[in-house]
Amino acid sequence: MADPRFFDNQGPFSVADLAGIAGDDASVVGDAGLQVTDVSPLGEAGPGQISFLDNRKYVPVFEGSRAAVCIVAPEFVDRAPDGMTLIVSPRPYRAYARVAKAFYPGNARQPGIHATAFVDDAAEVAVDAVVGPNAVVEADARVGSGVVVGAGGVVGCGGMVGGGTELGTGASLTHCDVGARCQIHAGARIGTRGFGFDMSPEGHLDVPQLGRVIVGNDVEIGANSTIDRGSGPDTEIGDGCKIDNLVQIGHNVRMGRGCVVVAQAGVAGSATLQDYILLAAQSGVAGHITIAAGTQLAARSGIMRDTQADARLVGNPAIPAKEYFRQIAMLSKLAKDRNRQD
Amino acid sequence: MADPRFFDNQGPFSVADLAGIAGDDASVVGDAGLQVTDVSPLGEAGPGQISFLDNRKYVPVFEGSRAAVCIVAPEFVDRAPDGMTLIVSPRPYRAYARVAKAFYPGNARQPGIHATAFVDDAAEVAVDAVVGPNAVVEADARVGSGVVVGAGGVVGCGGMVGGGTELGTGASLTHCDVGARCQIHAGARIGTRGFGFDMSPEGHLDVPQLGRVIVGNDVEIGANSTIDRGSGPDTEIGDGCKIDNLVQIGHNVRMGRGCVVVAQAGVAGSATLQDYILLAAQSGVAGHITIAAGTQLAARSGIMRDTQADARLVGNPAIPAKEYFRQIAMLSKLAKDRNRQD
Amino acid sequence: MADPRFFDNQGPFSVADLAGIAGDDASVVGDAGLQVTDVSPLGEAGPGQISFLDNRKYVPVFEGSRAAVCIVAPEFVDRAPDGMTLIVSPRPYRAYARVAKAFYPGNARQPGIHATAFVDDAAEVAVDAVVGPNAVVEADARVGSGVVVGAGGVVGCGGMVGGGTELGTGASLTHCDVGARCQIHAGARIGTRGFGFDMSPEGHLDVPQLGRVIVGNDVEIGANSTIDRGSGPDTEIGDGCKIDNLVQIGHNVRMGRGCVVVAQAGVAGSATLQDYILLAAQSGVAGHITIAAGTQLAARSGIMRDTQADARLVGNPAIPAKEYFRQIAMLSKLAKDRNRQD
Repeated sequence: MADPRFFDNQGPFSVADLAGIAGDDASVVGDAGLQVTDVSPLGEAGPGQISFLDNRKYVPVFEGSRAAVCIVAPEFVDRAPDGMTLIVSPRPYRAYARVAKAFYPGNARQPGIHATAFVDDAAEVAVDAVVGPNAVVEADARVGSGVVVGAGGVVGCGGMVGGGTELGTGASLTHCDVGARCQIHAGARIGTRGFGFDMSPEGHLDVPQLGRVIVGNDVEIGANSTIDRGSGPDTEIGDGCKIDNLVQIGHNVRMGRGCVVVAQAGVAGSATLQDYILLAAQSGVAGHITIAAGTQLAARSGIMRDTQADARLVGNPAIPAKEYFRQIAMLSKLAKDRNRQD
Repeated sequence: MADPRFFDNQGPFSVADLAGIAGDDASVVGDAGLQVTDVSPLGEAGPGQISFLDNRKYVPVFEGSRAAVCIVAPEFVDRAPDGMTLIVSPRPYRAYARVAKAFYPGNARQPGIHATAFVDDAAEVAVDAVVGPNAVVEADARVGSGVVVGAGGVVGCGGMVGGGTELGTGASLTHCDVGARCQIHAGARIGTRGFGFDMSPEGHLDVPQLGRVIVGNDVEIGANSTIDRGSGPDTEIGDGCKIDNLVQIGHNVRMGRGCVVVAQAGVAGSATLQDYILLAAQSGVAGHITIAAGTQLAARSGIMRDTQADARLVGNPAIPAKEYFRQIAMLSKLAKDRNRQD
Repeated sequence: MADPRFFDNQGPFSVADLAGIAGDDASVVGDAGLQVTDVSPLGEAGPGQISFLDNRKYVPVFEGSRAAVCIVAPEFVDRAPDGMTLIVSPRPYRAYARVAKAFYPGNARQPGIHATAFVDDAAEVAVDAVVGPNAVVEADARVGSGVVVGAGGVVGCGGMVGGGTELGTGASLTHCDVGARCQIHAGARIGTRGFGFDMSPEGHLDVPQLGRVIVGNDVEIGANSTIDRGSGPDTEIGDGCKIDNLVQIGHNVRMGRGCVVVAQAGVAGSATLQDYILLAAQSGVAGHITIAAGTQLAARSGIMRDTQADARLVGNPAIPAKEYFRQIAMLSKLAKDRNRQD
């Protein structure tokens, strides 16, 4: 299924092997010796291919699927079509992630510094790192083992990039340390000047931004996203955070572990996000507030105040989800009633 | 009018010639032999210059305009100032587009691969293509006839770029095929990893994103916009779509023909947009839904559910425009009434 | 405090010297001869360090601070902890900006054109300008005294960049003149094609965009922001404007002096912003309207109509702040009342 121009398939694997790779004590129902050649979406999969069912909405597709093998949760086993082999897992999506990664671990790249790249003499680049065409590593930067700097990527003066991290095409780091195994996608800008100045009709006056950006391990930062460096304190992105495309993170923001920030969301300066916050697409968090652990903010919503742990918030300004939907319903009803009276 | 440092004027043209170029059986009222040297905005145009009237709001400007020639719809002919020559067209804006293009077809560029560009030995680049300074064409990529890769642009491994397409400064393609005559503006990122992972407090686990981005013909993609590749299925952008700056298109999105997505709008993963959808600025479409052909979504609005064909929607969550404005008016009135009582 | 890998400290300075640097006739309370080695945030500062108090919210931090010196407004002098030396200023944040700039004026860069940069023979680059690794200066461009073009930055054909301006990593200019002392951050795209075309089911037809972008002096443009060139008229950014990251400015926008546009906000085509407008984060301004001087728009709000001078607006569509909060309160109360009845 995956286009061989772009993806190298490491299969086949036997169903038994894949069940082992799937983890979480997954078990096989059917032919454990079957050879599987590829992964494929449920609706497209055929002989020799493995797929997964994760969302109840797609049960009808599962029932009609021609996939040779499917990863499913225990409760859907009896909905499988005749002849389909199953890998039964309590976490089918996670199991699929592992299986797909076995087939497609990522294309190997030739280590070394490309002839067109520029690496300053005062920089340190691990021998097994990749520095792509027209990439730049400035003075005193340290680039760790297995790091990939994509075409045109830039590691600014003095910064550290931890082992296994990938910097995408044209992405740039400055005033910034990045941990291990991060993915920083194309065009992301980390460590640019925070938006700090004294406003006055006689002319706004810049306040030097003297902090850094400290990015933890296993962090993903999306394409063309921007993270400003701190004004004095640092901007901090905790281990395991997932940040999507076109996201803005202001100066001095502190983000805990495992936060998820979906595309086009923004976090204003000096906000604190505790662990496992979810900010859905196009949402926003005001500056100088604290978002408690586990808070989830709906798409296109904006938080203006500190939140309670595990809050579920919607709207502008965001309020508890239940309250929000009650207001929406009431508004609709009121408008209809009025209309009837007119 | 247009600054000669940036634009090469191919005029003059006679009014008769321009009427032919205008198309749609445009006719001349006045001096068909007049030589026209340039295009210019209605309020600034003078002798020898041609302008156009497209928006009823600007009729007073038209009445006072000193343009030598103006392209207008039939209903405004009698509002023209004395002595102005008219090109009468049922579609004055389209006629102006053609006329302006005749004057300014775009600056010619010297074909060839710039000395500072890097083109992999295993890539194919048409002899009449332009690969600009510090641009990169990676292994197995195919770059078609007349393609322009701007300074620092990157065509990733294995991708195809169709004839006449322009890739702007610093824009990058990966896991992606692009059709003919597209314009991909500066800093756009096409084919980056979709935002797919299994969430868990023990650590979010990436799901390999094994699809591509397939961009049709005559597509425009704005500066710093991002389009993620599919997770397994492809992300598809249909022929003739116009996408503005800073737009996010998630993985697996399928967009039909001629859709228009204005700046800072976003489409979440696995949404389907049928043909001729209009998403105004800063609007959003939720994931896994279908937007029916001809739907128009107002600026700063968000669609959460499937829509009916030709729907006109406003608000968050978006509702029919009529209903929305009724609610807004009611809310305002209620608040005023209450205030009076207090 | 500031990481010496990234920032060069030019201290120490005596308190007396710093009071002079602070400007606005700042005065010293305490030990004017004390040597100050660094700036530091109020909560972290210790011996030899100077901080500032600008926000009433942080008075308790001030009262417990161990900073050797603090810049404060007159009304907080008697809240200072024992032994702290004060620099008393009517504008403590502005004073701090000047003091911090004295400590950290910015790292000096070696003038000259990097060996990996490409400068067209027909371009003019001042001898004391810096053109970084893999940067590009195209034909007929003029780059002024002390300009810095960062790694991978691109100055397009024919454009002018005024003295002292810095173009960040990978930022690009085209069809554009930029004034003096501007900061254009990483990945910003100035002068790309405006989003102008005639819509039709037979195919949208591009209207040539024949204007420029004219950027004044002392303008800041944030990372990955986009400013389109005019369609015929120019797009204009007035002196002293501050534009944050991921902001979109459409074609033909005219922005007066000292406007502040916060992250992810957008201004649609042909809007006019007079002087000292503030558009908060993620807000939007519709096209073809005029925003009067001093208007302030709240975060996540959208203006659809012309405004009055010094208006304070909130919501979608934006209404006066007072009215907005009244509606929000009423809506909440109504929903609660109804709920009680049910």
